[in-house]
Amino acid sequence: MAEESFQLYDTTLRDGTQQEGMVLTVEDKLAVARRLDALGVGFIEGGWPGAVPKDTEFFRRARTELDLRNARLVAFGATRRPGVRTALDPQVRALLEAGTPVVTLVAKSHTGHVRSALRTTLAENLAMIAGTVRYLVHAGRRVFVDAEHYFDGYHLNREYALEVVRAAAEAGAETVVLCDTNGGCLPDEVRSVVAETLALTGVQLGIHAHNDTGCAVANTMAAVDAGAVHAQGTAHGYGERCGNADLFTVTANLVLKRGREVVPLERLRDLAATGRAVTEVTQVPARAAAPYIGGSAFTHKAGLHASALRIDPDLYQHTTPELVGNTMRTLVSDMGGRSSVELKARELGYTVEAGSDAVARAATRVKELENRGYSFESADASFELLLREELDGGPRPRLFEVESWSVGVSGAQGTQVRTEATVRLTVQGRTVTATGHGNGPVNALDTALHTALDPCFPSLARLELTDYRVRVLSGETGSGAAARVLISYRDGRRRWGTVGVDGNTTAASWQALLDAVHYVLLDGPPGRADDAPPLAAATG
Amino acid sequence: MAEESFQLYDTTLRDGTQQEGMVLTVEDKLAVARRLDALGVGFIEGGWPGAVPKDTEFFRRARTELDLRNARLVAFGATRRPGVRTALDPQVRALLEAGTPVVTLVAKSHTGHVRSALRTTLAENLAMIAGTVRYLVHAGRRVFVDAEHYFDGYHLNREYALEVVRAAAEAGAETVVLCDTNGGCLPDEVRSVVAETLALTGVQLGIHAHNDTGCAVANTMAAVDAGAVHAQGTAHGYGERCGNADLFTVTANLVLKRGREVVPLERLRDLAATGRAVTEVTQVPARAAAPYIGGSAFTHKAGLHASALRIDPDLYQHTTPELVGNTMRTLVSDMGGRSSVELKARELGYTVEAGSDAVARAATRVKELENRGYSFESADASFELLLREELDGGPRPRLFEVESWSVGVSGAQGTQVRTEATVRLTVQGRTVTATGHGNGPVNALDTALHTALDPCFPSLARLELTDYRVRVLSGETGSGAAARVLISYRDGRRRWGTVGVDGNTTAASWQALLDAVHYVLLDGPPGRADDAPPLAAATG
Repeated sequence: MAEESFQLYDTTLRDGTQQEGMVLTVEDKLAVARRLDALGVGFIEGGWPGAVPKDTEFFRRARTELDLRNARLVAFGATRRPGVRTALDPQVRALLEAGTPVVTLVAKSHTGHVRSALRTTLAENLAMIAGTVRYLVHAGRRVFVDAEHYFDGYHLNREYALEVVRAAAEAGAETVVLCDTNGGCLPDEVRSVVAETLALTGVQLGIHAHNDTGCAVANTMAAVDAGAVHAQGTAHGYGERCGNADLFTVTANLVLKRGREVVPLERLRDLAATGRAVTEVTQVPARAAAPYIGGSAFTHKAGLHASALRIDPDLYQHTTPELVGNTMRTLVSDMGGRSSVELKARELGYTVEAGSDAVARAATRVKELENRGYSFESADASFELLLREELDGGPRPRLFEVESWSVGVSGAQGTQVRTEATVRLTVQGRTVTATGHGNGPVNALDTALHTALDPCFPSLARLELTDYRVRVLSGETGSGAAARVLISYRDGRRRWGTVGVDGNTTAASWQALLDAVHYVLLDGPPGRADDAPPLAAATG
Repeated sequence: MAEESFQLYDTTLRDGTQQEGMVLTVEDKLAVARRLDALGVGFIEGGWPGAVPKDTEFFRRARTELDLRNARLVAFGATRRPGVRTALDPQVRALLEAGTPVVTLVAKSHTGHVRSALRTTLAENLAMIAGTVRYLVHAGRRVFVDAEHYFDGYHLNREYALEVVRAAAEAGAETVVLCDTNGGCLPDEVRSVVAETLALTGVQLGIHAHNDTGCAVANTMAAVDAGAVHAQGTAHGYGERCGNADLFTVTANLVLKRGREVVPLERLRDLAATGRAVTEVTQVPARAAAPYIGGSAFTHKAGLHASALRIDPDLYQHTTPELVGNTMRTLVSDMGGRSSVELKARELGYTVEAGSDAVARAATRVKELENRGYSFESADASFELLLREELDGGPRPRLFEVESWSVGVSGAQGTQVRTEATVRLTVQGRTVTATGHGNGPVNALDTALHTALDPCFPSLARLELTDYRVRVLSGETGSGAAARVLISYRDGRRRWGTVGVDGNTTAASWQALLDAVHYVLLDGPPGRADDAPPLAAATG
């Protein structure tokens, strides 16, 4: 049963933007907001209008361009400054001008911060809080108050921290959110402080945790267990330093472990897709190991587990992956040997006999290649090509031959950079030479390859290179080190990857490009449609 | 005071190797073991001899090549198989042959697993456990038992789970480790099950947690709070699916939050360096957001915090970074504006006046460049070049000019891949042309650049390119998308990075290569020695 009163609160677009390496445009923020709304979060904190020009712009555009179905938009800001009349404080005015139904105010609840950072008196701080809350409530806003550094403040001066909570609530704040701003708490402290604060004030409480002790999610769960009805977090745990509580993890935990339907069950099935969509916008590399939605979250490697998995997946999984939009995967690696290859082959749609020679040969080849630096974990397509050679009893028919390839990049004062690739292939007995241009060597080679082949093999036209990663092996980048290149593709509705390894980075890329072409030209196993659902990406 | 009786147990080399994307050689495992020993962990689980050939080899070589000062080496394996005499079970023999002082046996404690996975009776499973433990104790080994799927097993059939614990202990196992194998627990369940098990059996207990609910560290802390005296984890939380408990985080939490000196305080100062050393071996990308030791763990971005930080760092940090070998950093970004630039400039050794025009101009340029895709967060050197131009009141003197550059890569059937770069520079009035070869375009250009310049500028010879990363902006890789290239360098004892942005990936790399050269040729601020301590790397 849906729990409408729980306040699931996302601060990706404000606190999450402190994430090192993340820079969002206003367009990006609107896109993220739409996805979070679709997931069903209750509140989306859009930014700090007035203080951050990009955020002022975001709220302005949101009024006409953001059509939220589930979430309420929230503007974040500070209480009025010491000694200034609330109505005259330009920050407070900016909060109102943002035009949101909800406003969250950050307030000091730690006597040390009141004195050193705000440089005012404890009494004035309380007046700032009460005055600003009252002003905004009077203006028709729902108000939440973030009690900054609450847990440290409670430890230092409990009475004052509690006074801050009471002052905010008495002035009309709907929820007071207890913030572990420095992230130094462990769950037992959070639980007892939340429980005590609730018992001593009776105020509706929330939690805002950071991950500096590796316990942000656990702290959030502990606070909710202790009676908090509002939980803040960010997509993927984005945030400053060690990040905020990962709101995706918290959401799944609340629904699946606590039976609290803070988003509807049907929406929870969009969790993994929501995560991927956010990653595409932020370009912060996805964590394969992210709980519930990471590419590795339900990925099994060891041969030991692989055999048990064939019997009963629930023996080795704490929940059903499909509930969060994820799937179980098995990896081919030298740990798993034949069991892994068998399981993977079946996953790809092939019918293989347990203990077949083909599987054994494929497993041996995988192990040898891995010793040379190959990794098939993000390269399902390259693995499938290898498997097919063994299942078919020999190398795949050569639909074309490569005679030569080259690519050059050059720049000079005052001119545009030029990149040109040339490939020379033999296709159906004829020599075909094609050139390609692009934004770099890999892109140019890819273009040349398609120029040469697409006329003869029209199915190649649907291939779209979506990402490539170069990993220099052995930790050295001087001459002599090998490089492993992983290229990711979108192929109609499916996503898959290829791998290449060579002492030369461009040659490694060329291998991976060729594998992709061979893979598309390969017939899939009987029964697998070209528009089969996308395979889960290995890394987000 | 050192707590020698606490069993800090590392399973990086066994459970951690299930990490997707990690493949270690025997040499790698020996190197990691040495670093963990130096840190002061109590036990190092080296692998599964007999089952994994590489691990059999590891234990063989460890006998002569691994000189452990603090840790005990542990061999991991399974109890004898059903219906087989312990002394005749080849797996058990392999455990003995590993020659370690300690052996850890994994045993089923979940009735469902005993029946479905082992396919034997509950009674035989108990006999397997007791028999194998007794056999190994009799052979002079200290024995730990991992009670697999304990928490799920306890929930399903409490009595049997407790019987397993008792049987292991009565047969001579020193510690029974309760494993949340599927990772589905939350801390409160862990706490109560550990407390109950301890109360009902009196056996010395340990905890082995996984991160599938995002609570591995918290679960470990909860178990220790409930009386466990043994905690298992892996370096950086490596492991299958969502990983194991991050032993670095657990160690720091136990020492700094619980006052339990599970490693000596002086050794804790090596935590960050240990983490980096392990990363260099495993090549699994370091998480900047890792608690305590991540590059971002004590990194502050927002202008709000930057001003408070100048007053009192403790206001915004939950502990002192140096205690774990980390340092506080500030980031230059558009969020921080002038405060961030000022703070960063001082961190780099420059004397700047608060509110100076130079700082304001630098902040404006940073913001503009960031809008075009630049990121200075991993590129301190590029930032410093920009800052110097503003502080010096104009562009840096041109010690050389670039006339043109080009690089080509080509391959053909039956021949080695060739990469050649040519650069044409004007140095001290003369035109210098140089070529370079390498393992790819960036390496070749770098070589050519140094061939041209090192004779005139000998200080450049100490530059060593250690890593480069290409990020395609806007999520597209077709023509038209811009690329951002970050190159990392080792320069004597210092490490720093440069950035380049261009529509062409190679041109972006070229920019970053040039920045590095200009940076080395720049005089540092007065008072900063060339062998200043290395700057903390932005991403591990």
